[in-house]
Amino acid sequence: MDAAEFRRRGKEMVDYVADYLENIEKRQVYPDVEPGYLRSLIPEEAPEEAESYEDVIKDIERVIMPGVTHWHSPYFYAYFPTANSFPAMLADMLSGAIGCIGFSWAASPSCTELETVMMDWLGKMLKLPADFLAGTEGKGGGVIQGTASEASLIALLAARSKIIKLIQADHPERSETDIISKLVAYSSDQAHSSVERAGLIAGVRMKKIPTDNKFSVRGDALQNVLEEDRATGLIPFFFCATLGTTPSCAFDCVTELGPICNAEEIWMHIDAAYAGSAFICPEFRPLLNGVEFADSFNFNPHKWLLVNFDCSAMWVKKRSDIIGAFKIEPLYLKHDHQESGLVTDYRHWQIPLGRRFRSLKMWFVFRMYGLKGLQAYIRKHVGLAKEFESLVRADQRFEISADVVLGLVCFRLKGSNELNETLLKRINNARKIHLVPCQLVGKFVLRFAVCARTTESRHIKEAWYHISHLASELLQEPPH
Amino acid sequence: MDAAEFRRRGKEMVDYVADYLENIEKRQVYPDVEPGYLRSLIPEEAPEEAESYEDVIKDIERVIMPGVTHWHSPYFYAYFPTANSFPAMLADMLSGAIGCIGFSWAASPSCTELETVMMDWLGKMLKLPADFLAGTEGKGGGVIQGTASEASLIALLAARSKIIKLIQADHPERSETDIISKLVAYSSDQAHSSVERAGLIAGVRMKKIPTDNKFSVRGDALQNVLEEDRATGLIPFFFCATLGTTPSCAFDCVTELGPICNAEEIWMHIDAAYAGSAFICPEFRPLLNGVEFADSFNFNPHKWLLVNFDCSAMWVKKRSDIIGAFKIEPLYLKHDHQESGLVTDYRHWQIPLGRRFRSLKMWFVFRMYGLKGLQAYIRKHVGLAKEFESLVRADQRFEISADVVLGLVCFRLKGSNELNETLLKRINNARKIHLVPCQLVGKFVLRFAVCARTTESRHIKEAWYHISHLASELLQEPPH
Repeated sequence: MDAAEFRRRGKEMVDYVADYLENIEKRQVYPDVEPGYLRSLIPEEAPEEAESYEDVIKDIERVIMPGVTHWHSPYFYAYFPTANSFPAMLADMLSGAIGCIGFSWAASPSCTELETVMMDWLGKMLKLPADFLAGTEGKGGGVIQGTASEASLIALLAARSKIIKLIQADHPERSETDIISKLVAYSSDQAHSSVERAGLIAGVRMKKIPTDNKFSVRGDALQNVLEEDRATGLIPFFFCATLGTTPSCAFDCVTELGPICNAEEIWMHIDAAYAGSAFICPEFRPLLNGVEFADSFNFNPHKWLLVNFDCSAMWVKKRSDIIGAFKIEPLYLKHDHQESGLVTDYRHWQIPLGRRFRSLKMWFVFRMYGLKGLQAYIRKHVGLAKEFESLVRADQRFEISADVVLGLVCFRLKGSNELNETLLKRINNARKIHLVPCQLVGKFVLRFAVCARTTESRHIKEAWYHISHLASELLQEPPH
Repeated sequence: MDAAEFRRRGKEMVDYVADYLENIEKRQVYPDVEPGYLRSLIPEEAPEEAESYEDVIKDIERVIMPGVTHWHSPYFYAYFPTANSFPAMLADMLSGAIGCIGFSWAASPSCTELETVMMDWLGKMLKLPADFLAGTEGKGGGVIQGTASEASLIALLAARSKIIKLIQADHPERSETDIISKLVAYSSDQAHSSVERAGLIAGVRMKKIPTDNKFSVRGDALQNVLEEDRATGLIPFFFCATLGTTPSCAFDCVTELGPICNAEEIWMHIDAAYAGSAFICPEFRPLLNGVEFADSFNFNPHKWLLVNFDCSAMWVKKRSDIIGAFKIEPLYLKHDHQESGLVTDYRHWQIPLGRRFRSLKMWFVFRMYGLKGLQAYIRKHVGLAKEFESLVRADQRFEISADVVLGLVCFRLKGSNELNETLLKRINNARKIHLVPCQLVGKFVLRFAVCARTTESRHIKEAWYHISHLASELLQEPPH
């Protein structure tokens, strides 16, 4: 395919994309396919000879679409949102064409520099303490990670490296593995599975701190565990607080936890993967209070801030902590400016070496929506969640299982877990809307997350009447 | 921006992208900007109100392009290639629009299933042993990682988990940290920095095996170190072989190393990040001989196989080894089919949880080039490297520093490292072409990697005459 054909096919693809997104609600949100459906639809091997574009493109509707879960359908209420906006898609086209690999400043200066400045812009939108910003003289700064899982892992590894150096400074005879064997990291018992996984990868003990009746870790809960662990000779070094947990969008009490971590010299990382986007609104910013005590903070604009995946925003107060954990400098990656202290080489901030020009997506989205547009978007979703909450509360058969703070509503039928499992199964089998469950203090709960950019009040009402109708059918059946 | 405006702007962007790539050689390959250039060109904060698309787009040439290192310019010979093709860009547009997060089969069945089948297609193109393919009944299979760094890390972590379980099966009293403190992993002294970094992350000892005069690890070199280490009570568990090292594109002797690793129950991972693409050509496939001894194998189609970044292809013989290392199953990620054994949940195969629909890029590229088209592309690049090698060899002032096997030529002026450092500095300062150096047995060497899809013989000649001219100037100067 030459540039001339790309001009033609690219424009056709733009129309296909626009058609897809404009008409997405006509598609069934969750597919009917059975595992293994796709293999038999296409050849067993790649073709020897080139095929025509027509042949490829007609297979999109035949092979791909029947197996797509349509995350951007206004009938999709599962997991958490993933962002999708036209400005981000345009920026991604440009990013693909430039196709630079921005592992160092020299590998493409604009790729690195726009990222640093966009992370400052976003930090200011969130009113992050100035410590987290790079500015021209700051010690902190931001980086785009692929996912929150990587951000948690990087924070944990930086904390591990820091505590080892600290202990070895006083006790040079202690080996790294000896120290690691005594380390203990903490998170909420509601924290995302990726935090536990980060502990597995780093080879450190990871303990879950029990939460209160709002699913929030409180200061005394952490304090108690710290005292027990120090008494048995363990070395607490890392606490991952969650703002907006995955099961119920609960918030750890970082204003209590932060001072404890600071006093005990424990690295506090805040994972606000979903909720973080809301902090650009003044009315939700208090949920971030206490961030001033954190060493690192992360949230995903690719969830709820209209920047297509992948774009996970992470800030650190001392970038030397993170860089120092992994810096390895082969000659083929050295460049003139790197020792000047003026440049950022993002390869030291992340697990992968390569990286795309992802900040273009942020730049396009921030400018074409403006802060007010982004705030309006967040508020609209929160309003829709509140609307759904009201509908649930007005129905005596149901209960709300957790405070509705942002765009997630946790609810269930009053009754057994089995009843609710059956209800969820029927909802998903009907294929009209798509939800996933969670578990809250032993109860099986349905999660209703406002996800798609195009979700409107009518979709919320429609979803509720559908759920309510299926519940009525279920409750009218004789018990098994 | 609504769909109607996206239709218009998207088509403009398609033309911008086509214009950019058609005219890329008119742009200076390496930018003139100084560190910090970008910050002063744009506001300090995101705008409150939305800006127009015109305002955003005009800043591409004003703000971004002056700081881009043009990796797809035919004057770019630095690092290794990064792929860029029109079919891959079209597929990426579609991937962005579908915008699913394919962490589990249920999260979008086609995203998972196309990936499994495309990895089988690619495995067959490479004539990988059937053990590595998923098929319908296989125990192995492939996954798209973001980068080779992640693949090496995942392989190392899977090996770590496997050896710990193995030892604990016989010695349940031994703790994980005790075992980890005795583990030792190996790679070539020419291996990529990311392998050393994987060891740092996993908290295991990593030793570099010395290479022979072809920069290749041989069986006896590994055997010697293994014996020494076992004698001191260490537990060898992982060897990362490199096929196509970053400094000089050297090949570890996996036909010798593989049987040793198998006999010693050491996980052998093969990193062929750059060279792997060439193995689709029968004449280069012997370079992969010995892969049958490996536990895992990885290369980057996003380097040299025309699939835009990110697409790092990794295969394992036993997928249970990799899945078993990290499986954590919260309720909100469970789905009906996962216990059936029929489905793949790729989140267990990688560090991040989220993942884009990256296999679409492979599908478009494989079909629109066909195997023959891809082979022709590899052969053309190798031919261009051979052409450059001949030009260097014909000039008595220069020497070739390593065998030219694929698309990389390592060369230098006969003379001091200082002389070659000065030559490289002048080449890069002239801004006509862009190269990076490497170090080979203490010598400062220039690396000339054929990178851009549009590089032709005339560019190679032009690059050589330019280098030759700068060398003449340098050599005519009186010594300092």
